[in-house]
Amino acid sequence: MAVNLTTPNPVDLFPVAGVRLGVAEAGIRKANRRDLTVVELASGSRVAGVFTQNRFCAAPVTLCREHLAAAGGVRALVINTGIANAGTGERGLADARATCAALAEKLAIDARQVLPFSTGVILEPLPVARLIAGLPHAIADLRPDAWFDAAHAIMTTDTVAKAASRRIDIGGTTVTVTGIAKGAGMIHPNMATMLGFIACDAAVSQSLLEAITREAADASFNSITVDGDTSTNDSFIVIATGKAGNSEIASAGSAEYRALADAITAVAVRLAQSIVRDGEGATKFMSIAVEGGASREECRRVGYAVAHSPLVKTAFFASDPNLGRILAAIGYAGIADLDVERLRVWLGNPSEEVLVAERGGRAASYAEEAGARIMQDAELTVRVDLARGQARATVWTCDFSYDYVKINADYRS
Amino acid sequence: MAVNLTTPNPVDLFPVAGVRLGVAEAGIRKANRRDLTVVELASGSRVAGVFTQNRFCAAPVTLCREHLAAAGGVRALVINTGIANAGTGERGLADARATCAALAEKLAIDARQVLPFSTGVILEPLPVARLIAGLPHAIADLRPDAWFDAAHAIMTTDTVAKAASRRIDIGGTTVTVTGIAKGAGMIHPNMATMLGFIACDAAVSQSLLEAITREAADASFNSITVDGDTSTNDSFIVIATGKAGNSEIASAGSAEYRALADAITAVAVRLAQSIVRDGEGATKFMSIAVEGGASREECRRVGYAVAHSPLVKTAFFASDPNLGRILAAIGYAGIADLDVERLRVWLGNPSEEVLVAERGGRAASYAEEAGARIMQDAELTVRVDLARGQARATVWTCDFSYDYVKINADYRS
Repeated sequence: MAVNLTTPNPVDLFPVAGVRLGVAEAGIRKANRRDLTVVELASGSRVAGVFTQNRFCAAPVTLCREHLAAAGGVRALVINTGIANAGTGERGLADARATCAALAEKLAIDARQVLPFSTGVILEPLPVARLIAGLPHAIADLRPDAWFDAAHAIMTTDTVAKAASRRIDIGGTTVTVTGIAKGAGMIHPNMATMLGFIACDAAVSQSLLEAITREAADASFNSITVDGDTSTNDSFIVIATGKAGNSEIASAGSAEYRALADAITAVAVRLAQSIVRDGEGATKFMSIAVEGGASREECRRVGYAVAHSPLVKTAFFASDPNLGRILAAIGYAGIADLDVERLRVWLGNPSEEVLVAERGGRAASYAEEAGARIMQDAELTVRVDLARGQARATVWTCDFSYDYVKINADYRS
Repeated sequence: MAVNLTTPNPVDLFPVAGVRLGVAEAGIRKANRRDLTVVELASGSRVAGVFTQNRFCAAPVTLCREHLAAAGGVRALVINTGIANAGTGERGLADARATCAALAEKLAIDARQVLPFSTGVILEPLPVARLIAGLPHAIADLRPDAWFDAAHAIMTTDTVAKAASRRIDIGGTTVTVTGIAKGAGMIHPNMATMLGFIACDAAVSQSLLEAITREAADASFNSITVDGDTSTNDSFIVIATGKAGNSEIASAGSAEYRALADAITAVAVRLAQSIVRDGEGATKFMSIAVEGGASREECRRVGYAVAHSPLVKTAFFASDPNLGRILAAIGYAGIADLDVERLRVWLGNPSEEVLVAERGGRAASYAEEAGARIMQDAELTVRVDLARGQARATVWTCDFSYDYVKINADYRS
């Protein structure tokens, strides 16, 4: 059961001029299940992406990098669930190429104008014939208002579809930003089995679109973790169709740039937090907010040490304010000269926050009843002041429950 | 239920000349439970130790370091369970000092000749009065043959007592090596809530004893992981009483040195593996053997990436040969120039081993039935050839089950 996450209302997902989406049941791994999505982009659209750092990257990731580098102008995305087409060697690459070629032929574009994405079981071959046979159905379904359906069709172990949308004003022109994502386990910085797609209709230069993509990824998908595993297939794509009619954004210092970057980042953060809220077996949504660091990097290191600790995560599942486990995780985060006498830790929920640790131990003012009361909430914050500098970073994660084990022990059966 | 681990036979735990042990019920956290152990060492004993790298180290760890540096000759160890005396600030240090002083007074030695150890709940104050009141009972119980009782008295979430012993011949003299350990969760390299004590009666120089201690720790306690958490209290102590009558070992190149180092390392490996076998909720014992690395360090990195992955650990719990998760973990271990086309992976148990991955994907010869058959065993090996060099390293871990969550969600209740 996802933590404070409900299916978005379809009418709140605004169409993006220049983008049509269609879904189909291709029977890739299971029958009677929408498992194939095609996204068609208007000519002239610009696309940027960031991908998994896993050395065992999936064949579609390799092709995405190749096709984006080809700079021929991306005109379509094809996304399948069921099979990740990862750890599939030469055959996997050939299958991904065949997928792109088949879609390109049907849309009368070049195969290098197609970006492929796969998510699901690793090491098993992609049933490429079934995928290709499903393409005409997805193409026949292409509509501007299919974001809701596409959000469902890209789900794997997700229990709730993830989508977000907003409209902003850029120099008098209304710009729409809409995105969808999937992912529930294997979520980690540097992109886990996570797919995220955000499209806007703004006109923006290619280099600035790439800068926005990096900024948005850093603040969102690269600031979450469910289980510390980093997948083979993670991809985050930002599309700008240029159909809104604004003057092309070409200066990183402009108000228009900041407005677009903030809107895309906000949608990305919403999607990323939705992934954590739907973390496999999650019952709590935890924000680990680290401040007072000498660098953002060390704040992230502390945040991830706390967020990855199975002992912290199981204690939160039990609503147990076992602060010793949090302190232990801070202590092994790898800051060699950390002064534990100076750092302070607070535990909070949306209603209250209490100081729990200072001077190397439990805060004198802390009463365990307060901690136990706070822990009853499903939205929890661990705030850490390292007292070493001005940097800060927040990491979002979820707790670790019986159901996490159950879901991952049963996933293939 | 521990994996292929049974309580040692008391008669197989040989007394070590110069060492007496005694246990008591001090009621430190729970009643009717042996929670206090005193170890008395003959005058002239040499002691070396390695300790947690956690910045939030517990007060007893701070005192151990201080007392070992004082070089006054350690004459006693005092070990309590129930409360870790970690994250307890100035009061915790004062409590640990009071413990040492009280034992020193009763044994007519100096307080700096006592090494204190605590394990249990973090952040709660040590009930030092109850601990001190229990000391006379433990002292009255001092016996050379109490290793079996001490192994039980230092347990926390352990389900099986951990002890090992062996006798070797060094230059015609029989030398005895006996050790005990505790630990079941929060086990990680660099020493987790793990206490290990090994004593021998050999005569060996202080500097060589320290070298042996580092070598043994590296091959044993620093090569295991249960959940990746590193605790505040981990300590590994090696004692040499010098009572065996051998000529003092003073050359690192001598056969006598090698024989002693090998025996101590073998006992340490046995104890460390016992901790993994008794890992919280463990149902499988997994060896991740990485070979063909450019360095031992990168082999360990790959081994730990696989051993820490919750996805791998839950798949092993399910006896599911989900090799894609293993490949994904190898891929994110952080070897930037890893050639996934060259590496090979085998899955094995004591009866058979099969090649499962090569050339970036599933091995052509691999049949999933073979993987499924191998996974039925409780002793599993993942062997990885990185095909980059000659280095190798093995990491031991266990699977991740419902019971891990249950034990850690319930630990304080």
